[in-house]
Amino acid sequence: MHITNLFSLLLILLLSHTSVAQERDSIIIRSIYTYALEQGKAYEWLDYLSNKIGPRLSGSVGAEKAVAWAKSVMEEEKNGRVYLQEVMVPHWVRNDKEQLTVISSGKKTNLRICSLGGSIPTPAKGLKAQVVEVKSMDELEKLGAEKVRGKIVFYNVRMADKHIHTFNAYSESGKYRWGGAMNAAKFGAVGSITRSLTLAMDDYPHTGAMGYSDTLPKIPACAVSTIGADKLSALLKENPNAEVDLLMNCETFPDKLSYNVIAEIKGSQFPEEIVLVGGHLDAWDNGHGAHDDGAGCVQSMELLRAFRELKIQPKRTVRVVLFMNEENGLKGAKEYALKAKEAGENHIAAIESDAGGFTPHGFSYENTDESKVAKLLSFKPLFKEYGLYHWFDGGGGADINRLKDQGTLCIGLSPDSQRYFDYHHAETDTFDKVNRRELHLGSAAMISLVYLLSEYGLK
Amino acid sequence: MHITNLFSLLLILLLSHTSVAQERDSIIIRSIYTYALEQGKAYEWLDYLSNKIGPRLSGSVGAEKAVAWAKSVMEEEKNGRVYLQEVMVPHWVRNDKEQLTVISSGKKTNLRICSLGGSIPTPAKGLKAQVVEVKSMDELEKLGAEKVRGKIVFYNVRMADKHIHTFNAYSESGKYRWGGAMNAAKFGAVGSITRSLTLAMDDYPHTGAMGYSDTLPKIPACAVSTIGADKLSALLKENPNAEVDLLMNCETFPDKLSYNVIAEIKGSQFPEEIVLVGGHLDAWDNGHGAHDDGAGCVQSMELLRAFRELKIQPKRTVRVVLFMNEENGLKGAKEYALKAKEAGENHIAAIESDAGGFTPHGFSYENTDESKVAKLLSFKPLFKEYGLYHWFDGGGGADINRLKDQGTLCIGLSPDSQRYFDYHHAETDTFDKVNRRELHLGSAAMISLVYLLSEYGLK
Repeated sequence: MHITNLFSLLLILLLSHTSVAQERDSIIIRSIYTYALEQGKAYEWLDYLSNKIGPRLSGSVGAEKAVAWAKSVMEEEKNGRVYLQEVMVPHWVRNDKEQLTVISSGKKTNLRICSLGGSIPTPAKGLKAQVVEVKSMDELEKLGAEKVRGKIVFYNVRMADKHIHTFNAYSESGKYRWGGAMNAAKFGAVGSITRSLTLAMDDYPHTGAMGYSDTLPKIPACAVSTIGADKLSALLKENPNAEVDLLMNCETFPDKLSYNVIAEIKGSQFPEEIVLVGGHLDAWDNGHGAHDDGAGCVQSMELLRAFRELKIQPKRTVRVVLFMNEENGLKGAKEYALKAKEAGENHIAAIESDAGGFTPHGFSYENTDESKVAKLLSFKPLFKEYGLYHWFDGGGGADINRLKDQGTLCIGLSPDSQRYFDYHHAETDTFDKVNRRELHLGSAAMISLVYLLSEYGLK
Repeated sequence: MHITNLFSLLLILLLSHTSVAQERDSIIIRSIYTYALEQGKAYEWLDYLSNKIGPRLSGSVGAEKAVAWAKSVMEEEKNGRVYLQEVMVPHWVRNDKEQLTVISSGKKTNLRICSLGGSIPTPAKGLKAQVVEVKSMDELEKLGAEKVRGKIVFYNVRMADKHIHTFNAYSESGKYRWGGAMNAAKFGAVGSITRSLTLAMDDYPHTGAMGYSDTLPKIPACAVSTIGADKLSALLKENPNAEVDLLMNCETFPDKLSYNVIAEIKGSQFPEEIVLVGGHLDAWDNGHGAHDDGAGCVQSMELLRAFRELKIQPKRTVRVVLFMNEENGLKGAKEYALKAKEAGENHIAAIESDAGGFTPHGFSYENTDESKVAKLLSFKPLFKEYGLYHWFDGGGGADINRLKDQGTLCIGLSPDSQRYFDYHHAETDTFDKVNRRELHLGSAAMISLVYLLSEYGLK
């Protein structure tokens, strides 16, 4: 046989093998989607996690219950080994006083606020001060200490409507929540109020983590609802000398023992290569954490059940990891990455769902290795019929990103983002905001990608 | 100059012109999206149409009010000529009696039903009969007249969860609503109950149009909620001889005069070529028609405002058409197409939004002319950054499809379909189910495509 003929034959064999494999993968992915849409359990689990457990900030009784519940549910699935990984987490408590009263021309107006996570309280009798409204960090700097000292800084910065992907708007405005108190303290402010990070106009304040600097005074920090922010701004226009009375009695306790909840299915051929899929189990205390991130947890847990029902035995080890403390410290993520490093584990890829249980549009990834990304993108055609068109360089997820330094390809499920910030970190993040089909399409997308990664790896 | 060099030069000039045009189009589309997300009015209009007008089935007072309101809102935009087009429409009224009671072993169970649009009523004292449950038309045929005569046929067919695009599930199951009574009457049945066409498990019955045959007896037809369908099925398993008492007092009145509401911006260069954009103004009487199809109407109306604000003067004529009577007769669509034909008008393209105000994923089209479709698809890259990845051969829309025979390329906006049938034709189709950003992204998609079609045509 002539050498080019041999080559052609080999090529044909190779291609037909590939096309047989693609055909098989395509059938398996279809079966995962059908399973998720017809028999998926994630929605039912999320109902329990949201409505029976509800708020579960690190260190809370809710978080303890969530750990026990997730462990027992995953054990019941009888697919792999379930265990807890110890981690010390912050323990901040909101308590019952959250009040902002504007006093202007003898009239009192109450606005809906919530303390930001990690904030110190106000004095027990409240904090009375004038308010200085700014629209940017630059504006604050221009005002300087002279105009800011002794006052409360009000960051009235709207999240920008114009972005198509709402996370871009969130990224732009996040600094006012995280850095608001620090920046205000630089100029001698006594408190900080941030306009809630949401694209909705309503009366629900949105909490979230805030930071302090070791070299600056700590001042109380809260968020006001978007309607409240507009009211406060209007009142300040009427009377720039209006005072507010801010009352918060949140507390920080010593760190507490908590857990990452992990389930592992050993790989049949390459057990030392690990594919991780997960979300975070903790959620802010003001809502039920249905979208953030109950959704990501139950979608990941679904894998155990789907693989068992569909008799998928992964070639590489698959780990479902429910991280503790994403919201205010990332201690679970740090501990997991540290322990993985110490044990010399090889996480080839990690997928996180932490952008809500909405219709998935694709995956984002952290572009740390072009050949791995190319391999990941080679799977994309298999997902076209499921509407997963958008695969982009946009990071993995807060929890899994800690594995980046260990050579892990970090991937995030990217669902429709339009409604996410309407509920994010607010009392409106409840189960009734989740659609069963949308949630289960997210499970199916993640489970399908884990299947492919566990089957083919990233080499 | 050598001929190939000349050719190259021409090619370069041509390409650079194209790229300048593309750059300009890309900027205009961005400005349309920014306008819609920041200043769009569609959401506010939909609030009025849903909450102040509400139900607006053809022939009703609500429909009259909707016509007057839409005309006046479009006139206020002062962009083009607004006019009404007369059309005679059916006038069916649900009235106040809709009751299904299952009587089994002396126990009575009430189930939530609604009459299907166009049905005849039951006798005033109700219709008492045994029920025969079927899971398909085949099953009904196999039972035959012997087992069906004198009974009420209960079509307990679940919409299939497995489809990704929920309209495929709807297409599969639609025949049980439209053809249920006809097929049951063939075998001597005295009534028909259809399981509601929805993917949600809840207690809201979903209405919709049903048909009769001139050669078969007319029998009353209703839909039962999905929870009610499961209950009825369980009761029939317990006692196959259980009777039901069905009571409906709907009525059909003589046809009534109504209107399509039309706004027209004359094209500056090719006024005889028309690009139509629209939805249907009528909506079922049990809900507020927020998604079906208030959304499509206000999205289309937004064009007048967007073009004015952004100073877009279309080269071809643009018509916003709000059709009357899509739900139970398509008389508005038929009349519009007839008048267009009589006047020798040239509708080069028509875009309809009638799949809900959800995040748009792309456009579907009726593949009647490959060269026109190719031209349409040449616009697709401009929409990628807005998430409109899915352009497919899947029809235009019920109203615009009447123009197909006149050479019009029919195009449908294709939004996320996961939640649509949860609300479709039910009392849950209300304004609170619509997200402002999702609705406005749909407006932006349609307005952008109309801009391109009016600028370049389809040749």
